[in-house]
Amino acid sequence: MDETPRRGPATVVELTAQLRRFAEDREWQRFHTPKNLAMALAGEVGELLAELQWLTPDEATLVMADAERGGRVRAEIGDVMIYLTRLADVLGIDLLAAADDKLVEVARRYPADEVRGSAAKRT
Amino acid sequence: MDETPRRGPATVVELTAQLRRFAEDREWQRFHTPKNLAMALAGEVGELLAELQWLTPDEATLVMADAERGGRVRAEIGDVMIYLTRLADVLGIDLLAAADDKLVEVARRYPADEVRGSAAKRT
Amino acid sequence: MDETPRRGPATVVELTAQLRRFAEDREWQRFHTPKNLAMALAGEVGELLAELQWLTPDEATLVMADAERGGRVRAEIGDVMIYLTRLADVLGIDLLAAADDKLVEVARRYPADEVRGSAAKRT
Amino acid sequence: MDETPRRGPATVVELTAQLRRFAEDREWQRFHTPKNLAMALAGEVGELLAELQWLTPDEATLVMADAERGGRVRAEIGDVMIYLTRLADVLGIDLLAAADDKLVEVARRYPADEVRGSAAKRT
Repeated sequence: MDETPRRGPATVVELTAQLRRFAEDREWQRFHTPKNLAMALAGEVGELLAELQWLTPDEATLVMADAERGGRVRAEIGDVMIYLTRLADVLGIDLLAAADDKLVEVARRYPADEVRGSAAKRT
Repeated sequence: MDETPRRGPATVVELTAQLRRFAEDREWQRFHTPKNLAMALAGEVGELLAELQWLTPDEATLVMADAERGGRVRAEIGDVMIYLTRLADVLGIDLLAAADDKLVEVARRYPADEVRGSAAKRT
Repeated sequence: MDETPRRGPATVVELTAQLRRFAEDREWQRFHTPKNLAMALAGEVGELLAELQWLTPDEATLVMADAERGGRVRAEIGDVMIYLTRLADVLGIDLLAAADDKLVEVARRYPADEVRGSAAKRT
Repeated sequence: MDETPRRGPATVVELTAQLRRFAEDREWQRFHTPKNLAMALAGEVGELLAELQWLTPDEATLVMADAERGGRVRAEIGDVMIYLTRLADVLGIDLLAAADDKLVEVARRYPADEVRGSAAKRT
């Protein structure tokens, strides 16, 4: 019997380690190439889109209030995070640092004072 | 002049807060609906795939050794993480918990002893 | 009893008309907005990727020789074509003309004599 | 000087032949594996989503009235059709027949009388 409560990953680093061990335990490393993981990531994003595609914007905003569909959306988000974390690991990329660097660059390209309320693209 | 070194987010929680502030500062919340963010997520995953699509598996494995292309792959990974984090935030989903719950479920469906070395799908 | 053999669409124009009637018969036009159809298209492409993601390049090349998986790949290709055709219709785009115009442009950007055997991107 | 008007493909079969010749002329066949083409297809769908992602449903419905953005949407639709047609060709799949077979199956699963006006999924 399992006496200790299960404790999930507190950080991306912990999740990364868990996923690596998960793949090693199953000898799945050879499947986990960058191209294959990128395809799997896109596949899971596709499943996420499928949950939202026919909803109106308002229905989609309230989707988590529907236990069944909300649960499916949460599970798909979990799948996307799993493959994204695993892909970053096999490429040796620090996920949080990569996001932060990109955010800094986007903040520079879209200064709040100049773009307020507009979604026009800048290159 | 900025004297203090920029410090990136140490956790998903911090990144989530930064992205929320980023959207608020630009009054972009009305664009950040679940459907729109899911589309943006898929768009960024598409750009990531485009970086890898014509590479052989071996070339893709070594992609980070190429400074230019590796930099683009890292930037795309950052973009994907940004939209995934933002989408989870507007839906009220804890990204790490969602990934962990899914991992527990997948571990149950694919016991290491039974699936070692095989990628056959189980439902 | 249906005595006449079913005859599928011989052209994109016919498929377009069939899909339009299919949506009208079910009063699904209000779901078939450009954004929703684009999401559905991406969702189906995700399912297609999922069929190929763990295969080696050689296995994927031979995928149609496997009746079961090949049948699933063909069905996903059919789904992608359905949503692409329907999306083009609601946007008023001629699918074959759009593809042809793009091909002419790409042919100009990638003259055979200059790019033979290379996948380097040109902008 | 080109005296004869350019004539685009009248059918999917013609487009398929043009794309095959295009790839052969550039010796790109080795890049055009099923996995690579599926990734390219997803990449182009991602670019299409990016054109629509921040638009409201109403704006997206009218997107073709905007010459510039409408032109980009049409070009992306063309790209998606190109890779879908090429992927079907390398897999030996008849695109129109695959779509028609799928439509017949979906029509059986969603009889007009039973599903009118509803987007609920059936399996």
